[in-house]
Formats: sequence, structure tokens, C-alpha cells
Amino acid sequence: MASTTSDYGTHFPNSTRVHLEGPHGIRVPMREIALSGGEPPLRVPDTAGERGHEVHRGLLSVRDRWIRARPVEEVERSPTGVPIPEGLVRPTLRGTGSVTQMHYARRGEITPEMEYVALREGFPAEFVREEVARGRAIIPANINHPELEPTIIGRSFRVKINANIGNSVVRSSIEEEVEKLRWAALWGADTVMDLSTGRDIHETREWILRNSPVPIGTVPIYQALEKVGGVPEELTWEIYRDTLIEQAEQGVDYFTVHAGVLLRYVPLTANRLTGIVSRGGSIIAKWCLAHHQESFLYTRFGEICEIMRHYDVSFSLGDGLRPGSIADANDEAQFAELRTQGELTRFAWEMEVQTMCEGPGHVPMHQIQENMDKQLDWCAEAPFYTLGPLTTDIAPGYDHITSAIGAAQIGWAGTAMLCYVTPKEHLGLPNRDDVKQGVIAYRIAAHAADLAKGHPGAQAWDDALSKARFEFRWRDQFNLSLDPETALAYHDEELPAEGAKVAHFCSMCGPKFCSMKITQDVRDYAAKHGLETTEAIEAGLEEKAREFRGSGSELYLTGPA
Amino acid sequence: MASTTSDYGTHFPNSTRVHLEGPHGIRVPMREIALSGGEPPLRVPDTAGERGHEVHRGLLSVRDRWIRARPVEEVERSPTGVPIPEGLVRPTLRGTGSVTQMHYARRGEITPEMEYVALREGFPAEFVREEVARGRAIIPANINHPELEPTIIGRSFRVKINANIGNSVVRSSIEEEVEKLRWAALWGADTVMDLSTGRDIHETREWILRNSPVPIGTVPIYQALEKVGGVPEELTWEIYRDTLIEQAEQGVDYFTVHAGVLLRYVPLTANRLTGIVSRGGSIIAKWCLAHHQESFLYTRFGEICEIMRHYDVSFSLGDGLRPGSIADANDEAQFAELRTQGELTRFAWEMEVQTMCEGPGHVPMHQIQENMDKQLDWCAEAPFYTLGPLTTDIAPGYDHITSAIGAAQIGWAGTAMLCYVTPKEHLGLPNRDDVKQGVIAYRIAAHAADLAKGHPGAQAWDDALSKARFEFRWRDQFNLSLDPETALAYHDEELPAEGAKVAHFCSMCGPKFCSMKITQDVRDYAAKHGLETTEAIEAGLEEKAREFRGSGSELYLTGPA
Repeated sequence: MASTTSDYGTHFPNSTRVHLEGPHGIRVPMREIALSGGEPPLRVPDTAGERGHEVHRGLLSVRDRWIRARPVEEVERSPTGVPIPEGLVRPTLRGTGSVTQMHYARRGEITPEMEYVALREGFPAEFVREEVARGRAIIPANINHPELEPTIIGRSFRVKINANIGNSVVRSSIEEEVEKLRWAALWGADTVMDLSTGRDIHETREWILRNSPVPIGTVPIYQALEKVGGVPEELTWEIYRDTLIEQAEQGVDYFTVHAGVLLRYVPLTANRLTGIVSRGGSIIAKWCLAHHQESFLYTRFGEICEIMRHYDVSFSLGDGLRPGSIADANDEAQFAELRTQGELTRFAWEMEVQTMCEGPGHVPMHQIQENMDKQLDWCAEAPFYTLGPLTTDIAPGYDHITSAIGAAQIGWAGTAMLCYVTPKEHLGLPNRDDVKQGVIAYRIAAHAADLAKGHPGAQAWDDALSKARFEFRWRDQFNLSLDPETALAYHDEELPAEGAKVAHFCSMCGPKFCSMKITQDVRDYAAKHGLETTEAIEAGLEEKAREFRGSGSELYLTGPA
Repeated sequence: MASTTSDYGTHFPNSTRVHLEGPHGIRVPMREIALSGGEPPLRVPDTAGERGHEVHRGLLSVRDRWIRARPVEEVERSPTGVPIPEGLVRPTLRGTGSVTQMHYARRGEITPEMEYVALREGFPAEFVREEVARGRAIIPANINHPELEPTIIGRSFRVKINANIGNSVVRSSIEEEVEKLRWAALWGADTVMDLSTGRDIHETREWILRNSPVPIGTVPIYQALEKVGGVPEELTWEIYRDTLIEQAEQGVDYFTVHAGVLLRYVPLTANRLTGIVSRGGSIIAKWCLAHHQESFLYTRFGEICEIMRHYDVSFSLGDGLRPGSIADANDEAQFAELRTQGELTRFAWEMEVQTMCEGPGHVPMHQIQENMDKQLDWCAEAPFYTLGPLTTDIAPGYDHITSAIGAAQIGWAGTAMLCYVTPKEHLGLPNRDDVKQGVIAYRIAAHAADLAKGHPGAQAWDDALSKARFEFRWRDQFNLSLDPETALAYHDEELPAEGAKVAHFCSMCGPKFCSMKITQDVRDYAAKHGLETTEAIEAGLEEKAREFRGSGSELYLTGPA
């Protein structure tokens, strides 16, 4: 596999990767956008990771020293029959006891990861520690993922977005998936889930993890199902357990576990329009029904926690019964599972395992707030992580938009991370361009939510861009966009000449009708004639009125006043 | 100019245009989507107008007999120096008195237009009349636009969307603009604004009107400005008045009039980040300041009403001081104008002129509701018509998405019509594809709002699509999408074979991981084993538990319960 190209400057002209320096050798990346016209550069969050490195060797370690300072031991990897590519071999670690961020937070200890995210978010490290200790935020950071640039997920912080990648049996290659990972991170995915269900699941994940600067999540039941030939009834606790360990050893940062799907909830979905639409949920439902017992995800939940705390894998408690259509939103099945997610959250916290809860799905706007309210209440403020929600079912091909509407709204309400939806949702596996479209739509939703929440510093980006727009600094406007190349290309469709990049108009209105140009004229005129205040205007009006009265005119005769 | 192609069936496979029959020879078009699997066809709103007609002859008259039954007289058109193309010549009418829908509604008279929209919306005609009489809804329907298929704009009705088209001096031709009009209507624009500021404004508008099944709005100050060589200070009441009459005679259904921009409000914009971003607003501000007096839009408002009531042109009271950036949202300038829009609304109502009010703009989510609340209060529930609002400034190239988020929200709050924003906003003049992208994004926002408002019948579309999805009726799913061809194309990227159109999976998950397929298995299993209710499940669990207790097992030992 070739080295990646250093595409940072190509896609983000005038941007450079700078670092905020902190204790423990911490260097938090930020993207600094240089501006013209004497404007100070703007720093924005950066999730891109190192660009232009050798993919077959993986990224450099960020966290190795921090992890080694904990009670960890090197272990042999579990046998999988899949050889690790030579360049990617790393020692595999296991905590001799609990090594979770929650564990340290509760002991009052501020870890380097906490320092890192504190610097990244602009909050005191002690506040980060408190939020993690309380369970209101998580820092997904497996000790076997030293390449990770840590991030925090919780509603006091910047709203995060997740991009799903992964092959299916129908399509995709390892190379393509690694490229999707790096592509998603470049455009702003804060975490990436590898949902592969096709060939080479283990090896694909290895390449992804070794090349990922962002936390990687998985749904281990997918790989477990592959191991039993795709027959849900044949799943066993032992196969699942071994899969968890195998993935924890590779460095997966969070696991989606559908432990809230209980046997007695399955009949609650019988009258639904679209049944069970979560892959994991449907697999577990089938298992439960066939065996007529609760799933091992639930009955062995304590053992699962025990595994995860030794690697600091975080829970993403799956919503296996989420609604898959407007008709099924907020129904009994969905909320029954959410209550159980709450029970599981408290249990996981007892075990010091970091936990977030997954949420819907398809929900019309007026039913969104109820999801957030119940989740905060029942799940004791554990971070909420929702898929959209899609606010209508009628637009396959545009579900990045139907869902960005719901995502922005639920993000504002307090959801900590938004799982993207691409234009291909319901229709096929997203390709590279679909991934980008999904990430951009969700960066919009997340930023709109940050603005609405009054997140400190969020508006600086909007202000910088709008100022550039008003001052006709076209290049700055493009460079400040979430997607500079698209903004530039759209502008250049009509006015490609270099001179148009400083013109006081664009092709939308042309030179005579540019409101911003006219506003400049208005301001110049007001300055020149001393008409910059309401008082000056009123004094002038008074004088005019006297003149008119003197001449017998009745200016306002037909007006509404 | 050639005849249009009958593209209805091409873009909407399995759809046919059907008509609801009413009194007065009313035939309201609906799009009927035929479905497979024994499902009844679904009827959805249709704004496409007749397809495949001769553009150079215009559409057939829908309303001619209804209009002729009113007190109208044939008049000579005002001289413009622009010859009307022969095929498009129609008699030009003028009411001998007030001929507005509001006039008739207040007299207790249900017009054919009211019957038409009542049938179209599924409400009693008397309710429509009451809403129009009260000013809570408008039916923009110039007596010189007989080709119109009437529509109603008000918050009790389906949320409407408007598409802006029109050339600028930089680009576009008449042919291109007519095509954009018909293209926008095909995809679901309920009204279209011709915002031309370039060449051949009068002639372009004539072609647009004669070929438009939807209400056409304009901003007459644009053409007036062209008449004075683009110099705002040289605008006069007489030139503006003649422009209003010229456009009213052509059949324009609503005029944006920025009469709320008062001289004393101009200094309120001095400290804004982006000043005045409305073209009309900046033109009027410049005029007011240069002349140091209130604009003729305000001082002559009574005369403007007098003109409009003779043709039944509706007001769209412009928001010339709307915020153009997040920083400027909900500021003093914006709300000062909104109060004046309220005064003007009441004045227009006195004159029986139908009126709606335009709103912002750029507004972060948490400040959206305030816009709606104040508008309902200050403007006495006149229909609100907003541009977006855009919920962040940072995504030029994607402002159809930044604004669909705000549009859905304000539509839910009660906005009657949403003015679309295309991906080209801020960057250039939208082309045909941009128009489609904008319309689809706004159909999504409007429908999401209808769902959230519980609009009767809205959810039937979602349910039909989701049922098709769950039953793997792929063709039906595509055909029920807002954009069938895109849905089909996305699906076919990976699985183009005809067999995949009935397959119980897609390329996203592949055959083994399709949750809907597994749900079917679950349901089949439950039916076969009598496990379809929670009671049956619990009885079985009880039995299992007895067995386990008998064998000494402790199934839930490590579980959280």
C-alpha cells in the first residue's frame, strides 16, 4: 500500500497544521487559516491527522509514553489466523487492572488524555476530569491505539460527528476503506466507525487503526456473525467474547453493544411499519427468539465490562430497536430499550467503563426533544449519540439532508455526537464522495448546534467568514468554508478570471445589484455627510419637514403613517 | 422557442397527472404514483403544470372564465417599447374596482380560486375563505395570469416553497430562464420569483408568466433601477409606479416591496458585520440617505395598494434589513423594520390587498423562534415568508443545507412559505441543477415541517415509502422518492442488475446483514412458534427459568439486572 499524499494544502488552501503545546509533551493540532487584508489567522478544529505518512507503517504514536506509565503488561495477541502486516506490528497491551479514563477521573487524577482534550476544547483540565468522572463525557482511547489524537464526547463540549465506513460482501477493498477513513478525518469526522461485514474484517481493521488519528468504533457482533457463517442462532457467548478481546487488542476505542434488546421487547416491534432496522438489533432479536432466552450481551454484561476496562474500550450502548420510519418513532419498543440502556449505563459505570448511548433513527421534528429528555433522565446524562435523526422518509438520495435537519436540532438539545448519514443511505454502500457529503452535512449540523448552544468560540468562524464576504475577500471566503474547493469551483463556474477574486460582486447579482457593494456606498455617503447616527438623520428630517410645511406640501398624505 | 418535452414520466416513473374535479369546471392536478404489490396508488401534490406544451404559445388558461365574471375591463397595455411575441398576446385586464381575493372573502363570497385551493389542500372552502378574509392566508392570483393553478399560502395549509430564478447582467438567456421556471415547478416549487436584473427583463418575464402554472413574484425596484441606469438616487416614484403597472398588466402575482426600510433605520445597520444584504433594501437605503427623506415605497404606500387591488397583486413586504450573518441576527435594525412591516400589513388590509411578510436570512437556531413569535404578534398573523434561515455562515457551497435546517424549524413554528437557497448562494447565479438541488432541499424542509405540525395526510407519503422499503419493493421506493432518478441511480451504482430490484438486500449491508430481511425471519419464526406477544414470550421465559433453576444454573449471574 502506497504512502498517502499530503493533501492538506490541496484541499485547504492557505491552511497550515499548527499545534497547541501542553504538559506531557502534548501537541494538539489545529488548522490555522491565513487570511488577507491584515486579518489575524483563524484557528479551527483539526481532525485530519498527519498527512503524507507511509500507510504501510501507520501513524506515529502520540500516546505511547502516557499508556506505558499505567499498570499495563505486554501480551500475546489472541490467535486469529490473520498475519499482521510487518510494518504495522505493535506490542499489544492489557491493563493489569482497570485502566479507563473514568477510573483515573474518579481517583481525582488528570490524565494526559484529559489535558489533551482540555487544550483542544479550551476548557480547564479539571472540568474535563469532573465530566469524565461523572459519566457526562467520555474520552474513547483504547490503550492499544497509541496513534490516537484524543477527543472528548459530552454535551458540555463541541458537538462531535461520526462517519461510518466499512465494506460489505458486495463491495470494497482494504485500500479503499483506509482511504475513506483518512478522507473522512480530513473533512472533519471526529470518530469513525468501521462497520465492515465483508471480507478481511480483521485485516481491514488493523490497517484502519494503525492509520487513524481519530477514535475507531465497531459493532463486534458483525464479525462474530461472520465467524458463524452468518447464522444468528449459532452465535455463542464464547465466540462473541473472543471477538471482543481480538478487537480490544487491536485498539478499537468503542464497541457498539446491543445489550438493551431484551427478549420481551421483540414482540413490541411486531406491529411496526419497518420492524427492526438495526443490523445488530435484528441479529440479537433473532438469537433471543430462537433460543428463547435473553441475549448473552445482557446476561454476560458484567463480563463484557470486565474485558473492556482492561483496555479502556468505551461502550456505545446500541439502540437495536430504534425506529426506522416516521411511523415507528418514539414507540414502546424504542423507549423500553432506552430504559434498559439506562440500567446498563449505571452498571457499566460501577465497573468504571466509559459509556455513551445510541439513539434514533427516524423521528419527526416535534418528537425529537422527547428523545433527549428521556435519555438524559433515564441514562443519567451519559453522552447521547444519535443517527440523524431523519425528519422524513420521503427523500432517499438526500438523507444527508433529511437527517442533518434532525441532527442539528438534537445536537442543540444536548446530543454529544451525531452519526452521519450519507446520500446513499438506504440505497447502497457510500463511496468516497458520499463520505465527504455526509461529513460536510454533519459538520454543518454540529456547528449549527454549537452556535445554538452558545459554545464559546464557535461564532468566531462565522464572523471571520462573513467579514471576508462583506469585504469582498473572495479567497478568504473560500478558504474559510468547510469545503474551500467546492466554494471556489462554484464561484468560478461563471467568473473564473483572477480579477473576479477581488471584484465587488459575483455572478448572482452582477455589479450594479450587489447589496454589499451598495452598503459600502451607503456607509461612505453617511460618513461624508455626517449621517451616521439616528439623531443626525432625525435632525435632518425635522429640517426637511419644516421646508415642506413651509411650501404647503403634504409628503405623507398617502402613506400609512 | 421550442415546445417543452413531456418530461413528467421520465422524471417520475409510474406517475400520472390526475385531476380532482370541483365546481366551476375546477380540475386540480395531483400526481398519482402507481405502486406494485397490490398497494393502492398514492396521490401527492403536483405543481408541475402541463408538460409538453408549446412554449411560444404559453399554457392554456385555467381561470379565464372566473376572472371575466368579475368587474374587469380590457385595457391597452402601458407602452414599454418591448413587443410581445405574437403567440403570447392576451387581452390585458384591469379591475374597475377592487378585485382581490380578500375583497371577495370579506364579502362572504367563495371564489373559484378558493374552491380550487380548498380541493387542493383538503379543507372546506368556507375555511379557506375565512383565512383569506382574516389575512392569515393569501392566494396570489393576478387577474392577468389566467394560466395560474391557484395555490394558498398560510400557516394552516401545507408549507409552501419558493424558487428564485432570473438572470443577472453576467449571465443567462430567456430560454434558460423559462426552462428554469418549468424545471423548478416540476420538482415542486409552489411559487417562483423572477429576480432578473440583466437584459430583457420585460420580455423574459412575459415568457415566464405565459408558461407558469405557479404564482410569479418579482421585486419591481430591480426593473425600475435598470430604467435609471443602475443609479439608486435617480429612482423616482413615477418610474416605480409605471413599473408596478407594467408588471401588474403582465400578470405578476406578488410584488416584493421594501416599504419597511425607513430612513431612521439605516444608521442601525452601521455597526453590523455585513450591513444591508438585501438588494432592494440597500437600494432604498441609498435613495433615502441621498434624498434625506422616506422612500416613495413608504410615502406612496397607499397609491401602491390602490394599483395592486385593481389587479389583485399580493404584497410580499420585503425585509430589506434582514441579517446577512449570524452576528447580525435579531438585531435592532431587523426588528425595527418588522414592526413597520406590521403597520404596513394593517394598512394594506384596509385596502383589501393580500399581504405576506418576508423574513430572514441568517439566524442561529436558538434565535429562530423569536422571529416567528414577533412576526405573528406584530404583523397580526399575516403569512410569514422566510429566506432559509441559514443557521451558520461557514459553509458556502452548501447553503441549501445550512438553510434547510433553519427552514424546517421555522416552517414548523408557523412560517407559511420558505424561500429556497441553492448551493450557489453567495457564490454565483444558480444553474438548472442548482435550482433542482435547492427545490429538493426545500421540499424536504417543508415536508418535515408539515409532519411536525401534524398536517393532515402528510405522513401518508412517508408511510407508503417506508412500507415499500420494508417490503423490498425497490421500484416503488425509488418512485416514491422526491427524486426518483437520483434514488435509482444511487442504488444502481453498485447493483445495476434488474434482479437487484426485487432482492432482499442492497449493497450497504449485503444479503446476510440486512436488518429488514432478518426482521422478516424473526416475524416468521414468531408466527410459527406462537411467540408473537409479550405474554407468550414471558410464559416461555418462565418455563425456561424453572428448567434452569432445576439444573442449578444461574443465568443472570454476571448480568446487570
